[in-house]
Amino acid sequence: MRNLTMLTDLYQLTMGQGYFNEKKHEQRAVFDVFFRPNRLITYSVAAGMEQVADYLEHLRFSEDDIAYLRSLGCFSEDFLAYLAELRFTGDVVSVREGEMVFPYEPILTVTAPMIEAQLVETAILTFVNHQTLIATKAAKIVDAAGGGVMEFGLRRAQGADAGIYGARAAMIAGCVGTSNVLAGKMFGVPVSGTMAHSWVMNFPSELEAFRAYARSFPDGCLLLVDTYDTLRSGVPHAIEVFKELRAAGHEPKGIRLDSGDLAYLSKEARKMLDAAGFEDAIICASGDLDENSIASLKEQGAKIDSWGVGTKLITSADLPALGGVYKLAAVYENGVEIPKIKLSDTTEKITNPGVKEVYRLYDRKTDKAIADYITRAGETVGEGAPLELFHPVDTWKKKTVTDFRVRNLRVPLVKNGKRVSDMVPLHELSAAFKAEKARFWEEYTRRDMPHIYKVDLSPALHALKSKMVEEGGEQ
Amino acid sequence: MRNLTMLTDLYQLTMGQGYFNEKKHEQRAVFDVFFRPNRLITYSVAAGMEQVADYLEHLRFSEDDIAYLRSLGCFSEDFLAYLAELRFTGDVVSVREGEMVFPYEPILTVTAPMIEAQLVETAILTFVNHQTLIATKAAKIVDAAGGGVMEFGLRRAQGADAGIYGARAAMIAGCVGTSNVLAGKMFGVPVSGTMAHSWVMNFPSELEAFRAYARSFPDGCLLLVDTYDTLRSGVPHAIEVFKELRAAGHEPKGIRLDSGDLAYLSKEARKMLDAAGFEDAIICASGDLDENSIASLKEQGAKIDSWGVGTKLITSADLPALGGVYKLAAVYENGVEIPKIKLSDTTEKITNPGVKEVYRLYDRKTDKAIADYITRAGETVGEGAPLELFHPVDTWKKKTVTDFRVRNLRVPLVKNGKRVSDMVPLHELSAAFKAEKARFWEEYTRRDMPHIYKVDLSPALHALKSKMVEEGGEQ
Repeated sequence: MRNLTMLTDLYQLTMGQGYFNEKKHEQRAVFDVFFRPNRLITYSVAAGMEQVADYLEHLRFSEDDIAYLRSLGCFSEDFLAYLAELRFTGDVVSVREGEMVFPYEPILTVTAPMIEAQLVETAILTFVNHQTLIATKAAKIVDAAGGGVMEFGLRRAQGADAGIYGARAAMIAGCVGTSNVLAGKMFGVPVSGTMAHSWVMNFPSELEAFRAYARSFPDGCLLLVDTYDTLRSGVPHAIEVFKELRAAGHEPKGIRLDSGDLAYLSKEARKMLDAAGFEDAIICASGDLDENSIASLKEQGAKIDSWGVGTKLITSADLPALGGVYKLAAVYENGVEIPKIKLSDTTEKITNPGVKEVYRLYDRKTDKAIADYITRAGETVGEGAPLELFHPVDTWKKKTVTDFRVRNLRVPLVKNGKRVSDMVPLHELSAAFKAEKARFWEEYTRRDMPHIYKVDLSPALHALKSKMVEEGGEQ
Repeated sequence: MRNLTMLTDLYQLTMGQGYFNEKKHEQRAVFDVFFRPNRLITYSVAAGMEQVADYLEHLRFSEDDIAYLRSLGCFSEDFLAYLAELRFTGDVVSVREGEMVFPYEPILTVTAPMIEAQLVETAILTFVNHQTLIATKAAKIVDAAGGGVMEFGLRRAQGADAGIYGARAAMIAGCVGTSNVLAGKMFGVPVSGTMAHSWVMNFPSELEAFRAYARSFPDGCLLLVDTYDTLRSGVPHAIEVFKELRAAGHEPKGIRLDSGDLAYLSKEARKMLDAAGFEDAIICASGDLDENSIASLKEQGAKIDSWGVGTKLITSADLPALGGVYKLAAVYENGVEIPKIKLSDTTEKITNPGVKEVYRLYDRKTDKAIADYITRAGETVGEGAPLELFHPVDTWKKKTVTDFRVRNLRVPLVKNGKRVSDMVPLHELSAAFKAEKARFWEEYTRRDMPHIYKVDLSPALHALKSKMVEEGGEQ
């Protein structure tokens, strides 16, 4: 386990010393993580909470760290001595990884002494922003492909962690495997991969290269057929080797296309494989794919069973940052909650004040999600009585729901600095994601111009917010 | 030091077993790293080589790693026993970090037994692609700002490594500091940061928040002035506190703007600070900046001394992957070089075969770079005789250069598995980058539609390539 305690912005430490000097450092504070909508993010798939829990549990400054901070010349010895003993003692509630989440709702809330809550802001945002971003992108790609997506992006990832935790996030969102061996080892996810063009180039002929590979991997042999000429050389050579394998009692797995027109080549290759009696051989395609190119290939009838998706998944190429934020929602004075709000000229940028809960309402008849509903802490959301939902800005947009069930979206992740539950196996997270996504009408997850899912405020929360906005930030 | 030996694609290991079984695994092979041009990449700033050297020196599979690979069920015990003893024994030559580099030229070349050279492909590409990408983006941003750029992107980075190594790459390319404390500790780079909006929100008034901060940091005090109303509240309060500081014998550092129209606000704030006698107080701006917005703000006369650049730098938002590749250039048989070429229907995608050197030619009168020049290994590039350069595709485009000096762009990085030289301090790398960039006419580094810098082939290399293309890949 790497110690990432120093993975923070310097201002968390300068503010820390300021709070320490003002004796405000142990005031209990509440910070919410949420993200705002944009053109490409109408829903997200939460991820990164596992690394958050691990990081918080291991938070401690080493002697080395303290010596480095001393060398900066801006921290007092008293404060450094305090930091040397500092541990994370707070509480975190969070949605589970793989949860469907929406703009504005607090997906993770930290309640801790001010100095701790500030110190951990940066790393929490780094982990949650990155992994939620990649899980969301992967979900869109899996959606377009209808399954069979493998994560192949390590060499284009923004560093080792981006490759490792990106692969994990992709699995949560429904990818079926990764090429990344370290991610496979760390998280127990299926790994896959066979050969590169260099293998084929490194034998006197393509046929000899295929035969050599088949000697080493007679079962489940998958051959890369586009090094020279896919249809005139690659596929015929693959079929020749597949026949030899079958004669020796082995069934091949299939072929991989990595260049050229994947729609045309896959359709032709499919015919050739079928005609040769290899109807079960799969066609795997790779090469700069994303949800749009996959949808377009499928629309043209491409015969592709398995998709290797690299660069555009592992970097979320069209939106490489989620932009999640961490905002002060409240402090406690003598045990009493003092809600806090961040005002802005832009209505959408005004935060939701106070300690909150997030509920999801489901229609009992269809089991489909109706809306998410943010309340002040302590409000009860009864399933018996009708509930009036209204738009948080355009409050005249109203809707009354009756026959619904309610789920609190968030669970305790860390309590008094200790993680509450064990790491959930990835396959359980991805199964839960799949099940929950099926509870959303597909209008909400459409790639283009989806219908916007409602995230509403309770009347009590709305009243608090309106009052604080009127009063310019003071409760 | 983390062991990243398993940070590889599975196919490197399946090919490894194949080569092992075919007894080709110890054949010496030569692989080049290079990238192709695109709309946004006409030059790049090399980075990542430090991590490459470190990774190669520490390459070894742990018992855990071997146990995991065994569990996959596709590797033989013979091969696993071989892997357990495997170390990187090869050679790497590379451009220095901070070198100006161009499409198609081999910036790093690995010469090693085939199995080792394949195994390390993925991690080398991950490190070099990511760090070169961020250094390049940072160079463009620094260019637009004319200096004073701080890297503030950690919370939006694609994981911890992206933040850490991204900050380092940004420093190589001329950023003057980072908010990232861990990067500061690891690489000795200046760290900076003062306060967040939450600090201001957490005191009864903005003025009290500023005074509290000034009590803890009376020297070099920098105040964030946009929490409530920049010009009516933030700047006047800052000036009030600055006057109190000065009366007590301290000089303030300045203010930070993080929202609103940065051109207008900075010009007005400048007037207010000057009128109050704080002509030396700096104005730092942040908020979704990149090279284009910075250029536009400067064009409008924004009075900004220091730029905090986050998301768009640390993710290289408009181009989040460099796409560098690692291609087989040659193998050795009985000590004799056998050049290898990867053909393609796309002329630009045909690789340059064989073992090569890369030279940069400089005009002796102006000391400006003329062109880069790729040769076969062993060719001499004399400074005395005239040299005819010709375009590698449009060979009728010719130019003869006479009064020039030559520099071999690459130096040994790793020899027989051991790194050749110690880590170079970051400030030396960034100074070397700055000096070298000044040797390029600014037409080559212009943001929009730059002139394309020439990377030409020697007649001998061009002849080899043409011959291999004609013969369909065989020498």
